[in-house]
Amino acid sequence: MATIFSKIAAGEIPSYKVAEDENYFAFLDINPMVEGHTLVIPKKEVDYIFDLDDETYAGLTAFAKKVAEAIKRAIPCKRVGVAVLGMEVPHAHIHLVPLQKESDMDFRAEKKSLTPERFKVVAAAIAAEFNK
Amino acid sequence: MATIFSKIAAGEIPSYKVAEDENYFAFLDINPMVEGHTLVIPKKEVDYIFDLDDETYAGLTAFAKKVAEAIKRAIPCKRVGVAVLGMEVPHAHIHLVPLQKESDMDFRAEKKSLTPERFKVVAAAIAAEFNK
Repeated sequence: MATIFSKIAAGEIPSYKVAEDENYFAFLDINPMVEGHTLVIPKKEVDYIFDLDDETYAGLTAFAKKVAEAIKRAIPCKRVGVAVLGMEVPHAHIHLVPLQKESDMDFRAEKKSLTPERFKVVAAAIAAEFNK
Repeated sequence: MATIFSKIAAGEIPSYKVAEDENYFAFLDINPMVEGHTLVIPKKEVDYIFDLDDETYAGLTAFAKKVAEAIKRAIPCKRVGVAVLGMEVPHAHIHLVPLQKESDMDFRAEKKSLTPERFKVVAAAIAAEFNK
């Protein structure tokens, strides 16, 4: 059965998409630590990131770098942090989190609440930078 | 001036080394979240990971995958988590953290205390797997 992330990448479940190519997909985390918090996934359904074959893994990390660069240009931040934990959804995903300070990367903190309109604005801003 | 991580990679400051090649170096975090918490760095001195040139970045992520695989074989864990924050030391570094549960990845939690002897045992166990 397809994971929720596969359904998102296939467009069967709506998401705030920021970037896509043949093999990878990036969209806003619906429960963000901060505005601009993005998830990057391979379209290939593999649970654990280090179980990806080397080629898909290399492509994923290269795609994530491009998305991170777009986030940094679109969202005011000192840098974009990276995290992979992946025990909640069995589909490898990289968190990209615009950081003002290290403590912004806190999986236990209360998540930010954004309106659908704001999600759309943020996603469009990152997508515009990605496609430049 | 060389960063503390460059001095570690050069052997000028001692560390519990787990892996090394021409361009990359991995060693135990001296203030670990959990036993086996490892830092992976490029020998090239660049502050922000996404400022690395594409080739060095790709090599770093590939090297980190091999180190993560070695950690998973050496340290009992469900998976190896990844984090890059990097605001403390101005030299790009990837945290690899053996996880039993998501909350093991907590930068705000009190760090584990290990004896030098235990650090040596853990580093040797990961290094042995890396070199297999």
